[in-house]
Amino acid sequence: MPVEIKAPIVVNTAEAEILGILRKSGEISRLEISHITGWSKAKTSQEIRKLVNKGFIIEIGEGNSHGGRKPRILQLNNNIGYLVGIDIGATSIDLALAGISGQIYQRRSEPADVHQKPSIVLGRCIELIQEMVRAQGGQPVQIFGVGIGVPGPVDFNRGVLVAPPLMPDWENFSFRDYFKNIFPSAIVIVDNDVNIMALGEQKAGKGVGIDHFIFIKIGTGIGAGIISNGKIHRGSDGCAGDIGHICVDKKGPICRCGNFGCLEAMAAGPAIVEKAILAANNGSSPLLRQILETNDGILRPEDVNIACRDGNQAALEIIRSSGQMVGDVLASLVNFFNPSHVFIGGGISNFGNHLLVAIRQAVLRRSLPLATQHLSIDFSGIGADAGVIGAITLASQYLFTVKDELQQTA
Amino acid sequence: MPVEIKAPIVVNTAEAEILGILRKSGEISRLEISHITGWSKAKTSQEIRKLVNKGFIIEIGEGNSHGGRKPRILQLNNNIGYLVGIDIGATSIDLALAGISGQIYQRRSEPADVHQKPSIVLGRCIELIQEMVRAQGGQPVQIFGVGIGVPGPVDFNRGVLVAPPLMPDWENFSFRDYFKNIFPSAIVIVDNDVNIMALGEQKAGKGVGIDHFIFIKIGTGIGAGIISNGKIHRGSDGCAGDIGHICVDKKGPICRCGNFGCLEAMAAGPAIVEKAILAANNGSSPLLRQILETNDGILRPEDVNIACRDGNQAALEIIRSSGQMVGDVLASLVNFFNPSHVFIGGGISNFGNHLLVAIRQAVLRRSLPLATQHLSIDFSGIGADAGVIGAITLASQYLFTVKDELQQTA
Repeated sequence: MPVEIKAPIVVNTAEAEILGILRKSGEISRLEISHITGWSKAKTSQEIRKLVNKGFIIEIGEGNSHGGRKPRILQLNNNIGYLVGIDIGATSIDLALAGISGQIYQRRSEPADVHQKPSIVLGRCIELIQEMVRAQGGQPVQIFGVGIGVPGPVDFNRGVLVAPPLMPDWENFSFRDYFKNIFPSAIVIVDNDVNIMALGEQKAGKGVGIDHFIFIKIGTGIGAGIISNGKIHRGSDGCAGDIGHICVDKKGPICRCGNFGCLEAMAAGPAIVEKAILAANNGSSPLLRQILETNDGILRPEDVNIACRDGNQAALEIIRSSGQMVGDVLASLVNFFNPSHVFIGGGISNFGNHLLVAIRQAVLRRSLPLATQHLSIDFSGIGADAGVIGAITLASQYLFTVKDELQQTA
Repeated sequence: MPVEIKAPIVVNTAEAEILGILRKSGEISRLEISHITGWSKAKTSQEIRKLVNKGFIIEIGEGNSHGGRKPRILQLNNNIGYLVGIDIGATSIDLALAGISGQIYQRRSEPADVHQKPSIVLGRCIELIQEMVRAQGGQPVQIFGVGIGVPGPVDFNRGVLVAPPLMPDWENFSFRDYFKNIFPSAIVIVDNDVNIMALGEQKAGKGVGIDHFIFIKIGTGIGAGIISNGKIHRGSDGCAGDIGHICVDKKGPICRCGNFGCLEAMAAGPAIVEKAILAANNGSSPLLRQILETNDGILRPEDVNIACRDGNQAALEIIRSSGQMVGDVLASLVNFFNPSHVFIGGGISNFGNHLLVAIRQAVLRRSLPLATQHLSIDFSGIGADAGVIGAITLASQYLFTVKDELQQTA
């Protein structure tokens, strides 16, 4: 294994094209590569040979023949090193160790509190990464990419959080310096948590091959990841998808952002809990009152879900109301963006069909027929894995960088 | 001139890359092309020579030297043929004749009524195109591309209008068959009018070099054209940007779409006129009453503008209120999409600063600081020309098509 390698790995345009094709398709034959690139068979073979010699790609056997010799199948060489995906949530961390093709080897999840300092939360992440690499029989120096999703607005180019409401201590914290110190061969890429969930859904969930979709995360906050023309849309300042602060009701409660009636303040986890406590205390839900008393005065969103499953009317109304508000906002976004699919993820998405039906009804009521005729609104296909898969996908996108003969001499 | 040429003109991948660079940059040196493509000087020269021999590109003189020989500047060969841009509005048609580089030679505008049949409106367009080609000393067979913008939802792949509320007679009308019958060498591309305005703004207005922007047209209806990552975002069914039917007030008036309180029903041209007639009749604006009586009971949006410029308070309030409603909707879209620029166009945009200030105020009040810190909201830089320039740009994007050695033998 070439241990002197450091990411990003420099390649030329032709090599980058082949590596990009392999990254997207996983496994592919020489002939298919030559079809996609439009190169002759000779040139395709020559470029592939260079990449095989460098150790970046390998032949993994023979595919099915359509007459003639069986095609040899190519894949990124997972033996070259590892990628790490980290999904930092408000109350948990999820990590995975993968090969450079994105194949996941190891997976870790545990509770965490982002109100703590970065050194505490990320220190624990580093312990878990080292544990995963050891379990895999590898070395930290073989980690070539770390993708990180964080629950706050990210300046994508600088790789730092900007004015994150949930985690003020993390503002401007340099993830790159911190991780490169421990994993010197790695590129470090940071993005908003919902963007990496959208990327994960596109890579391995229901979003495979879909050009235009919106991924909505409903949890402690509410946010959206946007795929336009097959690519993530981060917007001009990297804060696209911040739908939690769209106004639902001008006369609604005050939000932590200072405005009134934001979607997040009215429909996310904390709002659900607040309404449930009210229902417990004003006598409209004896069941919620009983749960509240059993839990020493603490109610979690999951408790509202449990009550709803038990047929509790007040809990059902609270969940329906959240779904309707998300759907009202989504209706506008569907008119504007015309996605073919909307995927719902995040903790509150475990609330199941009552939530989903309410969202769908609100969208169908308010969006135009042309925009909804083929629209599918569904839960994420990979649930809790969307984040780590997306974080690994993100890191893999930046693993190779193009430098051409011409630029090298410049 | 090679009269046997028919669009789309078939080229290979390398040729397409050079033609694409020339289309975007207008004029460029060989060295710059070799920098962008990453090819050697020898390969770049070879590919350029092929395109010069085919007559697709020409040398137009020498650029500035940074030491050494002066670089020779290249451009698409306008002598090869023409492109036509057609912008069909609810009440007018705008046309332009250009070279394949997009340089405009002739321009025509006149009133029209899209409630009439396609054959009447488009028949007049064809007369005007033939007139422009004659004036330029050319032949209809030399028209290689026709780009058309229409005020309704377009199925972009099929090139037809789908359930257009303003022009029901035009549903499924085949623009391609109609125009190819008269201009047999031309490709014919149809798009929504606001999409072509966004393309025009990106080509020649304030949107040059801007990756993420929203173009909003306010006229008889309200719609948006969306540029994401430098490309037009049409959405899954081609109806992205249909913001006129986003709900502003659930208790608002009924819209032609069947819902209540749509932005279009409350803030576009007809709503402005309706409110002005009310102000004229209920005594709150003697000036509007006087205009109404002078014009035989007819008020146009322009009259409200004139009254506003004369300092009429009721007219000012009507315009401010429209601006505020557009701004309220835009605030949500800014949170979702995070554009760096919003451009306002269409007939109502002539209403000037009162409208613009009201839009800006509403957006700043409701969007998040991170999304507005660098946001610019301004009028279109090319006003009434955005449509035709965009239509020509659209046609130019489809003028050349790639077919490779490999595919040709398949």
